[in-house]
Amino acid sequence: MNLLEYIDQHKDEHLKELGDLLRIPSVSAKSEHQGDIQRAAQWIADKLTAIGMDGVEIIPTKRHPLVYAEWLRAPGKPTVLFYGHYDVQPAEPLELWTSPPFEPTVRKGLLFARGAADDKGQVHIHLAALESLMKVYGRLPVNVKVIVEGEEEVGSENLYKYIRASKAKLRADALVVSDTGMVAPGVPSITYGLRGLSYYQLEITAAKQDLHSGVYGGGVTNPLQVLAELFARLHDKDGRVAVPGFYRDVRAVSGEERQALRALPWSEKDVKRFVGATRLTGEKGYSTLERLWCRPTLELNGMWGGYTGQGAKTVIPAKAYAKFSTRLVPNQDPKKIAELVEKQVRRLLPKTVTCKFETLSTGKPWIAPYQAPIFQMASRALSEGFGRKAVFIREGGSIPFVTEVDDLLGMPCVLIGFGLPDENAHAPDEHLSLEHYFGGIRSVARFYEELAGLESTKAGSRRRR
Amino acid sequence: MNLLEYIDQHKDEHLKELGDLLRIPSVSAKSEHQGDIQRAAQWIADKLTAIGMDGVEIIPTKRHPLVYAEWLRAPGKPTVLFYGHYDVQPAEPLELWTSPPFEPTVRKGLLFARGAADDKGQVHIHLAALESLMKVYGRLPVNVKVIVEGEEEVGSENLYKYIRASKAKLRADALVVSDTGMVAPGVPSITYGLRGLSYYQLEITAAKQDLHSGVYGGGVTNPLQVLAELFARLHDKDGRVAVPGFYRDVRAVSGEERQALRALPWSEKDVKRFVGATRLTGEKGYSTLERLWCRPTLELNGMWGGYTGQGAKTVIPAKAYAKFSTRLVPNQDPKKIAELVEKQVRRLLPKTVTCKFETLSTGKPWIAPYQAPIFQMASRALSEGFGRKAVFIREGGSIPFVTEVDDLLGMPCVLIGFGLPDENAHAPDEHLSLEHYFGGIRSVARFYEELAGLESTKAGSRRRR
Repeated sequence: MNLLEYIDQHKDEHLKELGDLLRIPSVSAKSEHQGDIQRAAQWIADKLTAIGMDGVEIIPTKRHPLVYAEWLRAPGKPTVLFYGHYDVQPAEPLELWTSPPFEPTVRKGLLFARGAADDKGQVHIHLAALESLMKVYGRLPVNVKVIVEGEEEVGSENLYKYIRASKAKLRADALVVSDTGMVAPGVPSITYGLRGLSYYQLEITAAKQDLHSGVYGGGVTNPLQVLAELFARLHDKDGRVAVPGFYRDVRAVSGEERQALRALPWSEKDVKRFVGATRLTGEKGYSTLERLWCRPTLELNGMWGGYTGQGAKTVIPAKAYAKFSTRLVPNQDPKKIAELVEKQVRRLLPKTVTCKFETLSTGKPWIAPYQAPIFQMASRALSEGFGRKAVFIREGGSIPFVTEVDDLLGMPCVLIGFGLPDENAHAPDEHLSLEHYFGGIRSVARFYEELAGLESTKAGSRRRR
Repeated sequence: MNLLEYIDQHKDEHLKELGDLLRIPSVSAKSEHQGDIQRAAQWIADKLTAIGMDGVEIIPTKRHPLVYAEWLRAPGKPTVLFYGHYDVQPAEPLELWTSPPFEPTVRKGLLFARGAADDKGQVHIHLAALESLMKVYGRLPVNVKVIVEGEEEVGSENLYKYIRASKAKLRADALVVSDTGMVAPGVPSITYGLRGLSYYQLEITAAKQDLHSGVYGGGVTNPLQVLAELFARLHDKDGRVAVPGFYRDVRAVSGEERQALRALPWSEKDVKRFVGATRLTGEKGYSTLERLWCRPTLELNGMWGGYTGQGAKTVIPAKAYAKFSTRLVPNQDPKKIAELVEKQVRRLLPKTVTCKFETLSTGKPWIAPYQAPIFQMASRALSEGFGRKAVFIREGGSIPFVTEVDDLLGMPCVLIGFGLPDENAHAPDEHLSLEHYFGGIRSVARFYEELAGLESTKAGSRRRR
């Protein structure tokens, strides 16, 4: 039987099976879900065994287990490493869900459940694709390694440890991840760029204690005012980040890329509607899509100090705080940027305050050479799977895993995701389009077939150069 | 027995009794202290009865009760209305108190407790003074009306209602209030000027929901950034409030007053030490004392929005908030200033946000004609009570009651307070100097005696002109 026919004939079984996985509330952030985490890992392992994968392991870690499996019986063919995660974000606030988060429900062609898009639904697309290949051909077209973790939503610490210790085992010709989205409903998309994320926290101290604003107001430095003036000065009037050197290493958006971005089926109107804004704002001289995907930013994520309760309190607080982050693009170096930001913050602050500047995390931007053969293979497979030409997109967000693994394993990474821009990945009513789910299984199965044509480095069997 | 001797011989009893009052956690802002509020009111009423006052009443209101008492058996003598409050600020953060806030503790001549200075300790100075007069003379030298409220820290709403409805009952020749401080330890002070206070709250909305800072960062308006830029623009580089018309009605500080301010035993060094600042800042062209007492300000009292918990959350909040206030000086009109401030805030905000601007309260500045006889009487009494020449000072803070009652009852108001500049009235480790407490009882008792010489308008017995 034809592969795509087989897949189309097994929609109901696949969807039913995904439902079983989504019903497990494998929330990684909450210790009361420890048992659910174990169940989800076991579910994935059992499924991999059922598919016919070899060496299925549930690998315990200090926190949540990893699931590994491989199928390396295609000598001379390339090896693909698939990554996904079985853990999910907490579902709260529960009252904002239309149907319960762990009771998968289909409404208007959308499958609603926590994890439907991020990432169980997308993991299951790969499981269903591998199973379909096995059923139709009795084998896989390439060597496949699968790693599914349970800590993606809480920092992947133990995954990175495992990867560092298991480089040889995980060696492959390409990494395939489905944890991103499509630019618009029905438009298959390959993500070739991610922004890096560095996150900072600032504590400004102006006094050794809170002061009465009547007694001291007008005569002392107010740290909230200092914070306001600081952040006002961290952007110029054109919306550019006013940190000397911030843009020095930014790779310009080429004319070709700008044109490609303009051609995307992407509507500023949809963003406005989702945001609820009459007008979108940002750095002068760039389109919204360029601002979101190709330009770095400095954003306040939180700011607090003084009295925040009901009514009035006449206080000048001793301290004021801010959390803020920079989204970085190629070729900005997060460490260098963090230094520049800290230097500028310290330079702008008045001498009358002290400042504790913390860089909570740094993360590199990522960009893939999407002209390379593997990306063209993905494009062909997606176009076939969805019956619509695939597009290349970037994303404004960051996937620490991608850059981390890029550093650790040094293999090309293909991000083919099936989420939707409004999928509510971390919010109530998370959902996955059934059209994307089924199109995803078709595309991914075809992609594994296409990958047979990739030049093999025998990554499955011997050391990589 | 001589009055002052009597007072000096009863220090221990007075202090012990004040301790009983301070142990009642009569926090007016918190409903769980409702019972404590009642107990404190009862305590005051019982004390007034014990002193020998007439017509002691606990007057219920929609929120916290008022306590009233009078002694009108001095025909032909003037009538004095004493005002104080038995409610206190919340004690939080509790962990910053050296000794528990409601367990009065003496350390190095200072009595530590929530309410020690603001205002229970000062109310008790008057109770002890009245009692001493009664004990020594069997009567009071003047007619006295006492009103003690339980809502000073939450806006005095029901006090004002009561005053409006009870003008005849409260009629007097002078109002005496002890809820202020002394310019320096041991220097008795009469406060003749207060700044007005208007308090505002701002809610900035930039989106209909919180947004992922990766997906939307750089392409949408960030309300925290808007807030920062707004407040940065509400002051100019000379520290002046950048609201058109803000200074229009400000009465200039006269050369004579500036000179008097310079002569005060007041040290910028002490303020720096208390605040913990190396340098004091403020409006260009004015001394610190002028900035604090005679110049208007605009101060941020609270600011919040986005993620304020531990670690990082990559969010662009939908909303950002600020609480801020203007301190006003003669002859600024609070209503007019509130309009100017709102107008300027709205003018400065970008079109991409909506803004809810609330004026939570307005309060007029106040200044007294301190050359008038009653102020000279107060000066003599204080000088005698403390054995050191009294001075005339202003205060940067606001006592809404004073201006409100000024408007409602139109009687001269004498502010003789015994707090300390670093008393922590609204902060942990609030305290009152025992020297001030005992000196206060002496001075106030002598002041009531002095007041017998004030021209009576027979306010105690018939309608005032």
